Formats: sequence, C-alpha cells, structure tokens
Amino acid sequence: MDYFTVGPSQLYPIVPTTIQRALKDGITSISHRDQKYITLHKETVSNLKILLSIPSTHSIFFLSSGTEAMERIIQNTVQLHSHHLVNGSFSDRFYQTAVELGKKPTKTEVTYGASFDWNHIQIPSGTELICATHNETSTGVMVPLRKLYDLKRSSKTPLLALDTVSSMPYVDVDYSQVDMTFFSVQKGFGMPAGLGVLIVSEQALEHSAGSYHSFASLSTYANKYQTPETPNVLAIYTLNEVVKDMLKKGIKSIRQDIDKKSDMIAAYIKSSTTYDYLVTELHDRSKTIHVLKVKGGSARSIKLLELKGFAVSSGYGDMKADFIRISNFPSHKVKDIKNLLKNM
Amino acid sequence: MDYFTVGPSQLYPIVPTTIQRALKDGITSISHRDQKYITLHKETVSNLKILLSIPSTHSIFFLSSGTEAMERIIQNTVQLHSHHLVNGSFSDRFYQTAVELGKKPTKTEVTYGASFDWNHIQIPSGTELICATHNETSTGVMVPLRKLYDLKRSSKTPLLALDTVSSMPYVDVDYSQVDMTFFSVQKGFGMPAGLGVLIVSEQALEHSAGSYHSFASLSTYANKYQTPETPNVLAIYTLNEVVKDMLKKGIKSIRQDIDKKSDMIAAYIKSSTTYDYLVTELHDRSKTIHVLKVKGGSARSIKLLELKGFAVSSGYGDMKADFIRISNFPSHKVKDIKNLLKNM
Repeated sequence: MDYFTVGPSQLYPIVPTTIQRALKDGITSISHRDQKYITLHKETVSNLKILLSIPSTHSIFFLSSGTEAMERIIQNTVQLHSHHLVNGSFSDRFYQTAVELGKKPTKTEVTYGASFDWNHIQIPSGTELICATHNETSTGVMVPLRKLYDLKRSSKTPLLALDTVSSMPYVDVDYSQVDMTFFSVQKGFGMPAGLGVLIVSEQALEHSAGSYHSFASLSTYANKYQTPETPNVLAIYTLNEVVKDMLKKGIKSIRQDIDKKSDMIAAYIKSSTTYDYLVTELHDRSKTIHVLKVKGGSARSIKLLELKGFAVSSGYGDMKADFIRISNFPSHKVKDIKNLLKNM
Repeated sequence: MDYFTVGPSQLYPIVPTTIQRALKDGITSISHRDQKYITLHKETVSNLKILLSIPSTHSIFFLSSGTEAMERIIQNTVQLHSHHLVNGSFSDRFYQTAVELGKKPTKTEVTYGASFDWNHIQIPSGTELICATHNETSTGVMVPLRKLYDLKRSSKTPLLALDTVSSMPYVDVDYSQVDMTFFSVQKGFGMPAGLGVLIVSEQALEHSAGSYHSFASLSTYANKYQTPETPNVLAIYTLNEVVKDMLKKGIKSIRQDIDKKSDMIAAYIKSSTTYDYLVTELHDRSKTIHVLKVKGGSARSIKLLELKGFAVSSGYGDMKADFIRISNFPSHKVKDIKNLLKNM
C-alpha cells in the first residue's frame, strides 16, 4: 500500500533499515543517561538546527506528540490570556487546550476552508501569546508567516506559537519572529508516531510551569543533551538519520520537490470533473495537505483507491463524507504522485 | 552485548522480528482513527487485562512514560493532599511532582536501602491519595503490597497509587485495592522506551483535570479503543505481541522464573567477597532489581563486565561510585544469568 494519508503517512525511505540497524546495534537498550545517548541527542539537535536554520539561541525539546506541545506551550507561558487564530479543527484544539487548562483564551475564527482577513484581526490588549496553525490539516489552509510576524509586532504581543505539524520541514520559519514552533514526526518526516519536537526561543524560556515538562526542567536536561524522563530513544535515533538524509538532499531541493508535486496535483484537480479544492483562494492553499471535495461522496473514491493500493485520508470531522485529504510530504516521490493521480 | 541494565534493558526475544513485521505490514502508517488501529488497541487492552488479571471495571490508558504517569495521577486526582512513601529517588520524584504541581504533599521518608516501619506510618487526615513505589529502582527495595492495602484501609484514604515501573509483570497486584497502577515498557516488558501504561479504577476515574490527558479525555477515547493524540502505535503493536507471547508462557511460569533467577543471584552474592547487597533485610530485597555494593568501587567492575559483553547499571545518584545494579526481567533467561554470574 502507498500511503498518501495526512499522518501517520508513508515512511521516509530509509526508516525501515534505520530501525533495523538500531535494534541490531542495541540502541534501544542504552541508558538515556549514558554517553552514547548524550552523543545521539546532541547530534540530533545539531542536525535539526542546520536543516531548519534554527539559531543557536533557540532550544529544542523532545516531547511525545504535537498535542502535548500545545498543552506544554499553554501551561508554561500563559497566565490567562492566549489569543487563537482558529480556522480548523487543530487550531480549535489549541484554543480548547487553553480553555481546559483554566485560562481565558480569546479567538479570531473564520469559516473552515477560508483564511483570515489580516487587516482586521483584533488582538485584545493584555494578550500574552498568539497561537496560530501554519497548515490546517483539517482544511488544507496554509497561512502566510509574514502576516503572523506582523501581527505579533503590531499588537505588541510578547509571544507567538506556531503549529507546523503538517508543514515541517517544508515551511521556512524565521525563528527570530517565532517563540515556539512545534511538529510531530509522523507527517513531513515520514516516521512512526510517538515523538513531538518543540523549538523554543530565549524569550519563551523565561516562563516555566508544571513538573517534568516545565520549560525549566526541559531546559536543564536539554543543556546536558538529555530529557527529564526516559524518552523514545528509537525515534530520536531515527529522526537523526532522516534529518541527515535530508541534509544530503538539501532542504532547498526538498522544498522545491514539494512545490513541484503540489503543482502536479493542482493541475490534475483543475482538469478533473470529480474533484475540487475546499480552499477556493489559490494563495491560501496548502502545498502539503490537499483537501478535495469528491462528487458523489468520498467513500467510493477512498475504496476504489484502496483497491488499487493507494491509501488517502477521508475529510476531517463533518467533512468526512464529502471530502478526501491527500498528503504531499518529502517521503512521496514525483513518480508516486504521478501514479496516484493516474489512478484517481 | 547482553543488557542487565535496569531499563532500558535487554529486548524481549520476539521484539526485533515483531518491529520488522510491523514496518513491513504498514502498521506505522495506519491512522489512529482507523478500524485497524481500533482493533489493535482493543486487543492489546484485552490481552493485558488477561495477563495481569485486571478486572473489567478498570481502564487502561496509554501514556508516554512512567514519569508522565506520576504527573497525570497527581494532576487528575489530588486537590492538595497526597502522602508519599519515600525510600529512594523514584518515590522522591513522585513526591517532587506533587510539589511542582503546587500541591501540599506530605511524606514518610526512610533511609535509602531500608523499608518502612509499617506499624508507625502516620497518614495525615484529609489525605486524598497515598503514593507508593512497589520496587525502588534506585535502591532495590520491594515493599509488601498487603501492607499498602492495609494502610489505605486503616487510614481511610480514598485513593492509592502504585509505581510498578520496574516490577511489572512480576508483581501480582490486587487491583480491587489499588486505584492507579503504572509501568513503562522498557523494563519488565523488554521493549524500546516510549510508552507508559496506567491502570485506573472506577473510583479514580471520578476525578479529572487537565487537557488531552485528563482522565475524562483519556476515558472518552479509551471507551472507543483510541487515544486523544496520535499515540506510539508501533509500541502498542509491539506490546500486544509481547503480552501474547507472555500469555503463551503463562504468567505463573514467568514469575517463578524470576524467583528462580533471583535466588541464583542471591546465592552467588552470599558466596562473593566482592559484592554485597545494599538492602540488608532479606524480605525487603527486590527480585527484579539487585543493588550491590562493590568492594573497590563500581567503575572497574562495570568496565570489566562490559569487556566481557555484559552491560550492568551503575548505582543511582550518590551511590554511583560504589554500587552496581543488575536487572532480572522476563527477557533474561536462566542461562543468561548463569553466564553473567560466572563472569562477575
């Protein structure tokens, strides 16, 4: 089966052999306080910083999921007032996380499938943190980062948090503008689920709350190239190998490939009488997550593709019956996308 | 290398082939909302309940580590007053977790290496939860469960939480007496780290606080055989296979094997002039974690064993220089222990 699901998705090509080697070499038995682990942790952080151009001032923390990252961001940096840009189910979950943690969050919400009216977003005074989702996995809307940077600056909000769960490593973040960026590895990095990555600025690190995953605790251990708890060592090892492979290919080339494959999908959809984009505005459309309305409903289309060996995701939530979602990650080759489109 | 480290430790024999099969069969690419995942989740919970005799009234939640389990227990069930039995670094971490979360915990603390004076433990009135560590991985002290059950009853404390991180599945818990029991899979289950398991009673489930890992949220998803976030699906798949293999062997036989191997280690230490137990009282000694003082310091002993192909753990914290720790888990065969002892 070829997986074009939105995550977990197709494994990055080197993942199976990497995991086999880790098992053979006893990586899964080493202690997370051992020098071997420390060397691995240090190398992984260093390679990630090179690949994504993360400045040395920023810290990288390993968590267990993107969902955990949302919780830790709110818990550590918000006393009461976060403001959320909500345009889909995952940005809404970020908002709900703040509600559940007893904060008083506010939000700017738009119809699912639309983007924001950037000139009219009101950030309440006293807002401590703006939370935004770069790439809404539920709707396939990608927001322009420059508008977010401007919003932070013009509203004089101290902190900005960015969900890049389904756009990393495609997205080119200016980390001098963003205080917390997070992703999980089962999407753009093509790995098994079970690891979240949180990139934190010095400004954000001035805040801390909670127990073992307070920023203070995470930072104390990160400075020793360790984690407070026993981490998912196998995933950290695998991530390091995937990032090394991506460094060999070059991030520019990986991003260009995604643009190219995205254009191929868009061209096909334009000519199709069965499929059409949920997102009507071309400049709002995600390159990595294509959300498509299916004439006659999604169930038959998903079933037919499955019989031909292609797994795609159904629409999210209320859109389940009418939409499908297709991912376009570094794991997908041009010929894979060609093959999929030929069979759609 | 043969790993007698206290966790991560030796892989359970079927783990490497199980992970290879999971990768080949696309388990790491399936969605955690898909029927295939739901079937896997349901089967894993069901097999764990059979293996460990967990009553149907109890829920099983998948978390990311034992450390997370400590945090979620305090966060969800304690308003202010937990009481902790502290006899080592991990029971102390449980206590510290409550402090860090802003609670007002109390504790009964004994010298590391000793157990408790059960007739004189005072549980303050108003205590909501007693927290105890069945098997202290830092000191090798195992406490008698019946004393804990009695303590809960006599003190009329509503809830009891039990850390079985390094004693499960050896420990035979009476779940009608314990409200929250947790372990992680890199010890007695011989798996790569990155999954914690929390077993929760109906009484404990009446409490809830937090966001995606509040008991309410965990329970809502567990009832659908799912998790709130994308979980470590590879680990859940592997756990299910390990538990199935253990069911084939029979839990009684697994526990008897651990007793037998523990007796072999004890007999060797008794005759040794180099090694001696930290724990002087025979009935307090752990069967799964053997903490041994080394004449002349631990460094040379660890190095020599490593050269012969045996990895053991150093002493924990302050005991690093003088002690070693040896694990005795289901992954270790009788002949492995014989081999290790012959080379000590």
